[in-house]
Amino acid sequence: MTMSFRKLQGDEIARPSVNDYVRMEKHPVIVMLHNIRSMYNVGSVFRTADATAIERIIITGYTATPPRKEIDKTALGAQESVQWEYFSRPEEVLGKLKDQGFTICGLEIAENSTPYTEVGIENFPMCLVLGNEVEGIDSEVLQFCDYVLEIPQFGTKHSLNVSVAAGIALYEMVKIFRQQQVPVFREISKF
Amino acid sequence: MTMSFRKLQGDEIARPSVNDYVRMEKHPVIVMLHNIRSMYNVGSVFRTADATAIERIIITGYTATPPRKEIDKTALGAQESVQWEYFSRPEEVLGKLKDQGFTICGLEIAENSTPYTEVGIENFPMCLVLGNEVEGIDSEVLQFCDYVLEIPQFGTKHSLNVSVAAGIALYEMVKIFRQQQVPVFREISKF
Repeated sequence: MTMSFRKLQGDEIARPSVNDYVRMEKHPVIVMLHNIRSMYNVGSVFRTADATAIERIIITGYTATPPRKEIDKTALGAQESVQWEYFSRPEEVLGKLKDQGFTICGLEIAENSTPYTEVGIENFPMCLVLGNEVEGIDSEVLQFCDYVLEIPQFGTKHSLNVSVAAGIALYEMVKIFRQQQVPVFREISKF
Repeated sequence: MTMSFRKLQGDEIARPSVNDYVRMEKHPVIVMLHNIRSMYNVGSVFRTADATAIERIIITGYTATPPRKEIDKTALGAQESVQWEYFSRPEEVLGKLKDQGFTICGLEIAENSTPYTEVGIENFPMCLVLGNEVEGIDSEVLQFCDYVLEIPQFGTKHSLNVSVAAGIALYEMVKIFRQQQVPVFREISKF
């Protein structure tokens, strides 16, 4: 017997409105985008941040902020649903987040890194720091991190695209959090 | 005590050469890119396919093939390391892959979908099918699938960027395969 598959269309896909989304409880993860060059990458992270329902995006350094047409092009409206803030200096806001109990995790290829799959419930709330497409996370910012999370790579290239890496890491963080926590979120069938 | 993190530089990051990569054993996963509009998305999937060391990419329909400068811009050389083939009609090659024992999995939002995290070792070798950025996987191609895998989404948007979704799914497939299989691959410390 063959299973029949039918794509779900617009209205059949249960998604919250922007108003409902803004009010609903989020997964306790913040993404920091520090010195990201490409506005398309920024917009793409907004789209993934919406899909993963994380708390907010913190934009620092020379990373562009909405509204910019290049961000909107890949965010596709997620710049309206996802909460964000801008700070020129990442150190200041990272210090405040530490004081509030956040674990600061850089996503980077570094000595003493931890596989991104080995995060535990004790590491939430978490701020996940992403750095420049070529240079990665500035060394001074890296020293603020409690952990460096690394995505293993088996191929010839040194790194992944930053918005792809963000997607891989954010989905893993949300999965780990949801699996180890009594869900307090709206009922959904997946995960 | 604070952990000290130092980014690894070019030569310190152990990566195979293109020649070694082409010869090394790969994870038993093929990605099919059917009717993908954006060459940047195609290139981005090449980069992720290199990082995950999957068998190859099958390009079908109107999806562009290398060499194209837009593909190269996001593949960053992965178009040289990752094996790929082009077929105009996906049905033909999917039939052959089924005969060879591949499980055909569409990545889509559909009735009767399975969470992408619930794949088992019996689903390898796997062909993961990705469809158009707006329309998703053609209905005729969807009927060739043994499973439709779905990435749960908690936000306002209907879908993820296709290259981000590919990254999330490929990393999960490779992780599941490696965790359930006695590793026969070159020694690496992660996962």
